[in-house]
Amino acid sequence: MERKSIAIDMDEVLADTIKALIEEVNARTDLGIKEALLDGNKIRHFMPEHEGVLDEVLREPGFFKNLEVIQDAQEVVEKLSEHYDIYIATAAMDVPTSFHEKYEWLRTHFPFLDSQQFVFCGRKNIVKADYLIDDNPRQLERFTGKSLMYTAAHNIHNEDFERVNNWKEVEKYFLGNEEI
Amino acid sequence: MERKSIAIDMDEVLADTIKALIEEVNARTDLGIKEALLDGNKIRHFMPEHEGVLDEVLREPGFFKNLEVIQDAQEVVEKLSEHYDIYIATAAMDVPTSFHEKYEWLRTHFPFLDSQQFVFCGRKNIVKADYLIDDNPRQLERFTGKSLMYTAAHNIHNEDFERVNNWKEVEKYFLGNEEI
Repeated sequence: MERKSIAIDMDEVLADTIKALIEEVNARTDLGIKEALLDGNKIRHFMPEHEGVLDEVLREPGFFKNLEVIQDAQEVVEKLSEHYDIYIATAAMDVPTSFHEKYEWLRTHFPFLDSQQFVFCGRKNIVKADYLIDDNPRQLERFTGKSLMYTAAHNIHNEDFERVNNWKEVEKYFLGNEEI
Repeated sequence: MERKSIAIDMDEVLADTIKALIEEVNARTDLGIKEALLDGNKIRHFMPEHEGVLDEVLREPGFFKNLEVIQDAQEVVEKLSEHYDIYIATAAMDVPTSFHEKYEWLRTHFPFLDSQQFVFCGRKNIVKADYLIDDNPRQLERFTGKSLMYTAAHNIHNEDFERVNNWKEVEKYFLGNEEI
């Protein structure tokens, strides 16, 4: 039987982008933002008077390179890759300075993946896979296969997609791990 | 009616990579390679004793940034974009240092395209589009839509795919331009 394919988003799914973003924004402003209080909003929503700061942080050399890996992502992606074709599909075109750091980050933290499995794209209607795990409702909407919403602070009130709350739930969804 | 989508490869389809590669190799060796004499072979075939030179050239800063545009590519892609959704799908993962230069090259020479239409990938089975225009038979083989082979010196003996020899023929194929 042909293997099914899973496309996996990077920011806020594999990499803890929002944690690092909040740290950097709080270091540069007096906003004192807390992830738990985002409550369905994007961080941008809380800083109308500091619009430039977010873009400044995202373009800072080293920002994407130093992101922490989301809990259990490495272990579960490696297990999934035994049964599924895995692609890492990240919307990199908004921050073109991030290409090389994202590539290096994936090579460092997911060394069992071949770089041929990386896709740096824009809108994910161009991604051909059976599943997409993503935190962004607009990307999940565009994708033409089965969309799974990975829970993030900004999407908690969205009810349009089947949801996975963490990597253990992803494992259960695809591999039916009974230990959970 | 929904617009059809066309994915377009970059090296040797939009950008004259082989011309620049031959120039650089000839400047660094005494091989005196000529494009017209490749005759169905890749340049690598003619330089078994200079294996490192090609990789050296491909990784040289500025190589991808300075490539010439293939004749008529800009004009025809712009016309196509009025009737089709265009994606530029390039296998960038083999030379990760090329990401930013390829991005800048596309912004410079195809300013009418949105960067959301760029896809930096590995194998093109991951690309979901109705058509793929590519010079690489392996990529055309993997692609799941309609494959069109863009003629390049290395592929002239391949008969596995419908062929377009230049951008005027691409225009005719998609827009039925009768002036040709």
